[in-house]
Amino acid sequence: MHKETLGDIGEKELINRLGKFMPKNQISDDCALIKTKNNNNLLVNTDSMVENIHFNNLTICPQDLGWKAVVSNISDLLSSGSKKTIGITISLVLPPRTEWIWVEELYKGINKALKEYGGIILGGDCSKGNEKIISITAFGVQGELELRRNACKPGDIILTTGIHGLSKLGFLIQNKINFGNEFSLNKRLISKSIEHFCRPKVYPNFLNNLLKTRSNKKIRKIGCTDSSDGLFQALQDLAIASNCKAIINYEKIPKVEDWPKGDKWDEYYFFGGEDYELIFSLPKKWANNLSKLDKNINEIGFFIKGEASIEFKDNKKNKLFNKTPYKHF
Amino acid sequence: MHKETLGDIGEKELINRLGKFMPKNQISDDCALIKTKNNNNLLVNTDSMVENIHFNNLTICPQDLGWKAVVSNISDLLSSGSKKTIGITISLVLPPRTEWIWVEELYKGINKALKEYGGIILGGDCSKGNEKIISITAFGVQGELELRRNACKPGDIILTTGIHGLSKLGFLIQNKINFGNEFSLNKRLISKSIEHFCRPKVYPNFLNNLLKTRSNKKIRKIGCTDSSDGLFQALQDLAIASNCKAIINYEKIPKVEDWPKGDKWDEYYFFGGEDYELIFSLPKKWANNLSKLDKNINEIGFFIKGEASIEFKDNKKNKLFNKTPYKHF
Repeated sequence: MHKETLGDIGEKELINRLGKFMPKNQISDDCALIKTKNNNNLLVNTDSMVENIHFNNLTICPQDLGWKAVVSNISDLLSSGSKKTIGITISLVLPPRTEWIWVEELYKGINKALKEYGGIILGGDCSKGNEKIISITAFGVQGELELRRNACKPGDIILTTGIHGLSKLGFLIQNKINFGNEFSLNKRLISKSIEHFCRPKVYPNFLNNLLKTRSNKKIRKIGCTDSSDGLFQALQDLAIASNCKAIINYEKIPKVEDWPKGDKWDEYYFFGGEDYELIFSLPKKWANNLSKLDKNINEIGFFIKGEASIEFKDNKKNKLFNKTPYKHF
Repeated sequence: MHKETLGDIGEKELINRLGKFMPKNQISDDCALIKTKNNNNLLVNTDSMVENIHFNNLTICPQDLGWKAVVSNISDLLSSGSKKTIGITISLVLPPRTEWIWVEELYKGINKALKEYGGIILGGDCSKGNEKIISITAFGVQGELELRRNACKPGDIILTTGIHGLSKLGFLIQNKINFGNEFSLNKRLISKSIEHFCRPKVYPNFLNNLLKTRSNKKIRKIGCTDSSDGLFQALQDLAIASNCKAIINYEKIPKVEDWPKGDKWDEYYFFGGEDYELIFSLPKKWANNLSKLDKNINEIGFFIKGEASIEFKDNKKNKLFNKTPYKHF
């Protein structure tokens, strides 16, 4: 008899089922929350990068991998409203044939990212295994504003801190994928894409800018997640957790100069993943204030009452969202 | 040209080298320490269990594995002086062919251990991979007494919370290793060994009993580690971190009833690993008070000034320590 496997049920259903083992008062979000007495609550996030799933020797060098492993964790902390990264613990699984210089380079990248965004190495452990796995747990301090997936409201404007699709393009270029004769990607776009894939950046000033532009001091909770699993997945996570409908204005979506047109490129844009932009929602006034202050931030749509889902304002684009989103299993 | 690999340098040297990437003010111990404002410092520990290295389908069922993964983390927290386990985050790497029921059983075991020893599931993540990896990060609150590897002092008595070797014997029995005709292990020893291997226990009252019997309130730091990598390794870690010499009295070492005699059985005892007993050192008076209060605690030797090393009081036994200790790589 075939017993149900993880491949059968898929990632979303798996997370759903695992959620039932967690106490009801826990936040089901990008980060876990540890409550402390003096109200300096801690945010905790773990992200694992598995060889041949998330990376391989051809697409990324160990120093960039170390950088990226830290950044992907800090991105989750920021998307929950972390005001400061305390530090990280590092859990490595490595085959005995791994060269010491590979580990040294990995740690150089880790320390570069910590130097850039704050935090120290608090500890770690290392085990033998058949494939390389870098698992980082990052600790941040919860700031005044709680950023949560379930805090979007009908009427809120949907915003993004930046451009999507570049990381996916970088990944394809590193894998020497042929884009066909119809495209000759220019050098600037190529190097920008590789940089986005190998050395992604995050936005440590995001929380401060949010606080600076807040239109109503009573609002302490806003809807937010990061786009590490792709823009579509981020929007879907917000819509489902907040139980409202996202309307996206395709024309307003920020694209890098020279980004080619066509369905394939829209697909990279919405489903590519590993962009580490923040996708969030704000009341109209706050959204206007913030996008005036930070020119990289763009309003791309709004939430309305309705079934948890995503639609384009321009109906013709909706066929794009019939694609299967990023799936781990 | 052959580049130096992790297999070449071994686990201890690897940990040594990685330590250089950590800030100097960090404790290099069983746990990492996160300092908080109100002096409720947090202890953090990550332990990873890798399929075919730390477990396999034949030797342990998923429910026991979940229990053991939690217990091995709590053991590290206790060995640093944690007064309360806050909770854990769970990071899984699983092949898509993994059956859902396996995951469900794993979580049942995790929750049983949390129910027994305290703490909740705070969050987690799950990735696809070729081999199963269960990585748990546990959070505890640092109690009044700081238990650290580097706090043993010449003159201190060395103590253990319990018996060693049983877990290794359980592992061998589960792997259907033939012990030869000279031994017929009795049923009680067999079931006790399997229980020690599959469902190890820890000592949540240890810290309270230490505080109850403290002879001098000024002492806030004592030498301690757990024997997850074997009794020899624990003694060596204490001796090296504290820079003193351990003298072990073989006659005083507590053994389970019916434990066979002979070099092989001494080897299981000292190098077996996964026993999760606490190995610690106390001033003489305190040691006497504690071992009177808790009959499971045994004095097994003492520290003296000298080169960081371990010796038996009975010289004939010293040949045992020429064996290679537990090695991950």
